[in-house]
Amino acid sequence: MLILMKPSPTPEAVALVCRAVRELGLVPHPIPGVTRVAIGVTGNTGPVDETPIRGLPEVVDVIRVTKPYKLTSREMKPDDTVVVVGGVRIGEQRPVVVAGPCSVETREQTVETAKRVKAGGAQLLRGGAFKPRTSPYAFQGLGEKGLEILAEARDITGLPLVTEVIGVEVFEAVEAVTDILQIGARNMQNYPLLRRAGKSRKPVLLKRGQSATLEEFLLAAEYLLSEGNPNVILCERGIRTFSDHSRYTLDINIVPELKSLTHLPVLVDPSHASGKREMVVPLARAAFAAGADGVIVEVHPYPDKALSDGRQSLNLQLFADMMRGLERFVPNVEPEPALVA
Amino acid sequence: MLILMKPSPTPEAVALVCRAVRELGLVPHPIPGVTRVAIGVTGNTGPVDETPIRGLPEVVDVIRVTKPYKLTSREMKPDDTVVVVGGVRIGEQRPVVVAGPCSVETREQTVETAKRVKAGGAQLLRGGAFKPRTSPYAFQGLGEKGLEILAEARDITGLPLVTEVIGVEVFEAVEAVTDILQIGARNMQNYPLLRRAGKSRKPVLLKRGQSATLEEFLLAAEYLLSEGNPNVILCERGIRTFSDHSRYTLDINIVPELKSLTHLPVLVDPSHASGKREMVVPLARAAFAAGADGVIVEVHPYPDKALSDGRQSLNLQLFADMMRGLERFVPNVEPEPALVA
Amino acid sequence: MLILMKPSPTPEAVALVCRAVRELGLVPHPIPGVTRVAIGVTGNTGPVDETPIRGLPEVVDVIRVTKPYKLTSREMKPDDTVVVVGGVRIGEQRPVVVAGPCSVETREQTVETAKRVKAGGAQLLRGGAFKPRTSPYAFQGLGEKGLEILAEARDITGLPLVTEVIGVEVFEAVEAVTDILQIGARNMQNYPLLRRAGKSRKPVLLKRGQSATLEEFLLAAEYLLSEGNPNVILCERGIRTFSDHSRYTLDINIVPELKSLTHLPVLVDPSHASGKREMVVPLARAAFAAGADGVIVEVHPYPDKALSDGRQSLNLQLFADMMRGLERFVPNVEPEPALVA
Amino acid sequence: MLILMKPSPTPEAVALVCRAVRELGLVPHPIPGVTRVAIGVTGNTGPVDETPIRGLPEVVDVIRVTKPYKLTSREMKPDDTVVVVGGVRIGEQRPVVVAGPCSVETREQTVETAKRVKAGGAQLLRGGAFKPRTSPYAFQGLGEKGLEILAEARDITGLPLVTEVIGVEVFEAVEAVTDILQIGARNMQNYPLLRRAGKSRKPVLLKRGQSATLEEFLLAAEYLLSEGNPNVILCERGIRTFSDHSRYTLDINIVPELKSLTHLPVLVDPSHASGKREMVVPLARAAFAAGADGVIVEVHPYPDKALSDGRQSLNLQLFADMMRGLERFVPNVEPEPALVA
Repeated sequence: MLILMKPSPTPEAVALVCRAVRELGLVPHPIPGVTRVAIGVTGNTGPVDETPIRGLPEVVDVIRVTKPYKLTSREMKPDDTVVVVGGVRIGEQRPVVVAGPCSVETREQTVETAKRVKAGGAQLLRGGAFKPRTSPYAFQGLGEKGLEILAEARDITGLPLVTEVIGVEVFEAVEAVTDILQIGARNMQNYPLLRRAGKSRKPVLLKRGQSATLEEFLLAAEYLLSEGNPNVILCERGIRTFSDHSRYTLDINIVPELKSLTHLPVLVDPSHASGKREMVVPLARAAFAAGADGVIVEVHPYPDKALSDGRQSLNLQLFADMMRGLERFVPNVEPEPALVA
Repeated sequence: MLILMKPSPTPEAVALVCRAVRELGLVPHPIPGVTRVAIGVTGNTGPVDETPIRGLPEVVDVIRVTKPYKLTSREMKPDDTVVVVGGVRIGEQRPVVVAGPCSVETREQTVETAKRVKAGGAQLLRGGAFKPRTSPYAFQGLGEKGLEILAEARDITGLPLVTEVIGVEVFEAVEAVTDILQIGARNMQNYPLLRRAGKSRKPVLLKRGQSATLEEFLLAAEYLLSEGNPNVILCERGIRTFSDHSRYTLDINIVPELKSLTHLPVLVDPSHASGKREMVVPLARAAFAAGADGVIVEVHPYPDKALSDGRQSLNLQLFADMMRGLERFVPNVEPEPALVA
Repeated sequence: MLILMKPSPTPEAVALVCRAVRELGLVPHPIPGVTRVAIGVTGNTGPVDETPIRGLPEVVDVIRVTKPYKLTSREMKPDDTVVVVGGVRIGEQRPVVVAGPCSVETREQTVETAKRVKAGGAQLLRGGAFKPRTSPYAFQGLGEKGLEILAEARDITGLPLVTEVIGVEVFEAVEAVTDILQIGARNMQNYPLLRRAGKSRKPVLLKRGQSATLEEFLLAAEYLLSEGNPNVILCERGIRTFSDHSRYTLDINIVPELKSLTHLPVLVDPSHASGKREMVVPLARAAFAAGADGVIVEVHPYPDKALSDGRQSLNLQLFADMMRGLERFVPNVEPEPALVA
Repeated sequence: MLILMKPSPTPEAVALVCRAVRELGLVPHPIPGVTRVAIGVTGNTGPVDETPIRGLPEVVDVIRVTKPYKLTSREMKPDDTVVVVGGVRIGEQRPVVVAGPCSVETREQTVETAKRVKAGGAQLLRGGAFKPRTSPYAFQGLGEKGLEILAEARDITGLPLVTEVIGVEVFEAVEAVTDILQIGARNMQNYPLLRRAGKSRKPVLLKRGQSATLEEFLLAAEYLLSEGNPNVILCERGIRTFSDHSRYTLDINIVPELKSLTHLPVLVDPSHASGKREMVVPLARAAFAAGADGVIVEVHPYPDKALSDGRQSLNLQLFADMMRGLERFVPNVEPEPALVA
């Protein structure tokens, strides 16, 4: 932390700041300069609320140099977190593919899709029973009935299930059924929900908010870890930018940055990040090439009839195209001859 | 879909149209207006054959509303919605000022601030008891104790109270105390919360999400209106952009656009939109000049000691500066001589 | 400047950094800390290239705490720059209105518009002879013929002229005719053009690039000032954001920030910042209320027939609406009774 | 407008159509193709009556191209443009690597880097002699002396040279030396420069502006093509977003979208798109995986001593890491055993 003072501050103001720093259990280091005076602060190994210092007389700015997230940082835990669910290991060398329909619409559509994505090589099943929708008039998901169908698809295929929990009021219902709790982009800063999920023993897939900075994303994960849940998977799903040729912009840059800063696994959702079916295959490859621990994609046997997000769902042919040779795009994994296109 | 009736239609004709709408599986919303009567139709997720309705008695026209928001649109309700709370009228000619601390910290700070903002001319009191915070380590508000303090400040000053409800699990507690329910930017797409607030009889102040488009903002309001709550106040609080000289960018353009597209009142929050105390006064003036129905600002007697957002809180002197002559910046309101600076 | 070192740096690495700092004529202040070591740097009163320090061993980051722009800063020149042209004073208490057509199309359209905006109270005339257009197939302006027409309109009305120079190859032609040289948003970082304009004796109106930060904007102005031209007027014209209800987003926040950081006059262009005629009047009022030194607006007698930007041009009636009572929205200027609506 | 002819049309029929187009005041561009022959039409700024053309011999169809870009679109030219320079083919199956220093600093640094990147497998050399810099106080490049050094490095290594031309006033000097003219992001909408480069016989590498939409990017390329230069290479170099963990955000989504919409080759610049050396290798892999025709990267033997952009330059070790196994990330190219890591 660095505290900038006004030009030519009074000795009293400098002394006041130094005392306030010491009261926080930290060590002040005044740096007298020609045009400005600054006070360096060291000794902070945990979170510090800098607000009281900002308010002191003649203080111009407080520049934070230590990261506000702690438990999620690699500095705290250098080795990779591997989330294990139903025998699938997420965050280790070989990336995973999570696939399934956007929404559960019928038992047939869900079970068929689950069987097909399993046959195609997916390791986990995704599907929405409770759907957050921008319009109150749009299809909102089948709710508890959808959960039953997802459980059946999971049992038939053996694929562990990822499904979204949209609020604390349905938390127990979703938690009872799913293998991984998904917290969606719109809920990345729904703190009661984060706290509740932090108390669960099920792993959590946390999606980045569409305008969340990396720091906000890791602080949302910090809510989960600080409540005691170590099994958190991060997921980049596209950010909102001016760029209008796709629904969102996949922030591919965040993949290596997250892998460097945090020990948590990082997935990429190319379906939501583009909103366009034909972009999903190249973006999934790019995600793997950039070092992601896996991708999560929407698949629908008849995407043009989907009740939600059909435009971005892969059909079964495109899903097969994506899977064929995907391992080739994984750095540091020797491609097995049979899997290379 | 919007069904226009003849001027002063008979109740029988309106009832007949409503029945026909229901037979199509849709929901009719009769909107009695001063100059015309219309029946809004919601629930149509696919194409609808409007022919049977066109033939009904006293039906003048059936307008396909291409916009996905219905009840919030001016096409459905041309005249301004005026939200009346504790004698204060929001959305009429004279804009309002909502003021108070970011967070309730102590009884003294809250009551003193409430008295001072009332003396300064504010018409409503704001203050947070439950605070959504980016970091799990930051001050999270006093919770129910904070609500008690806010109620006391309201009772002492007579200023109607606006406070945030951060989730359905604390909804009843907040609803019991507050005069206006605030839904914050991070919760603009928390649909269970929106649905719950839509069923309340208390008015709702809905803040725009930091990366919400105008359409998403109005669709969030649509959740509230479609559940039966007509008393919704919109609030622009800054959007996330690349521009890094302020915490957010106040989207001043949305003020005239919202006033044109919706009948709901529109407030502006210059404190959050800038994150800088010294910008609040010019931005509040700009908001009024652009046609906003009011502003909501953070005030703290000693902002440098505030536990949250002190950097953006006005001190009492700056608040007085803002209030002095503010009416001058309101278009179409003749300034009263005494109020001009 | 603050130099962050790796945890537990070697004394040699710290010594190396300190020596490099001294070689730059600056003073290093090592700050030993518990988890990190930092080196504060003071004494830099001019521009410093930090690149050599960034590259030294064990250096993690260099945080700049002094501003990179110098001549444009208020620290360098505390009192407002007033640009005087043809008797009009820009940057003093009373803001100015610059008005005219987007493009010069015909002599009649230009002269008529000039007369009408003068009659309506504008103090300067704007108009484009050379037009930068996104598409090569769009109308590119009348070029030198357009300059002749603008000169005639200026002579007839007596309004000083602002027109854009789109490149060094037409610089002399434009400079010979115009009273103020406009550098457009697309050319804000066209450095050969900036250098050439910095050598001119004509004042320069510099528009902010659509994605320029405040710092980049002031550094572009710094090119002009550092070449010797002190008469620079800044102009905010909207930034590119995700917000899609207007063509650009007027960054109203930058107005008070620029007024605080630089001594240069600040105009606002509500026509380009919104792209919608009906937003121009409220945004012009907001600009004045926020403290701008003036506005620049597009006016066309028959905007629906304009060859460029007709959608955002005011017609003569809307221009009159804007001018009526505009002074009322200027802070710190006592409205003259006759001008209040 | 695009006029489709019968397969193998007679020259007379094509000439007849071209004459008819010219009679409408428009410009015909016959595009001989492998599978079909089409005649692109440009110059139409308003509605055109296509009836007379439809009736001409051997005309199969007249397609109204709603897109504002014509010559750059795949509709006009379905087969990929391959830019050939010095024996290197850009835009064909095997992607290329362009590498070299950000700026030419000394003869030794430039020649050494050129030799090393050639030895490492780069096919083209990049390097800046004229540098556009945000601050007037930053190193602006060696200018004509830098061009001489680049020419020498090119001659020694045999690598074709890409270097930036920052304005029309230095155009001839740069054109005389370089093999490919680079137009930088800041100049993407410098129309006099685009027009001049469109008249050159040297290929042009056009970088996307940091806030340019896809449409604006293709329209900038359209300036080049419409002036007669068919050899244009597009380059995504990162866009400006709120995301603050990297200098820009690589818009990886634009790669498949451009490959779908235009026939021009598409490169990616991971150095500028991230601003961080450690991101360059994963982003280069991602670019290849997403279907880019190559990457352009900054390499410096001692990046920590670079006079510009050292933070984002690869050192020679990282460059070797990038090159090793890069081909593996190219879709549809069978990796040669020797090149796989």
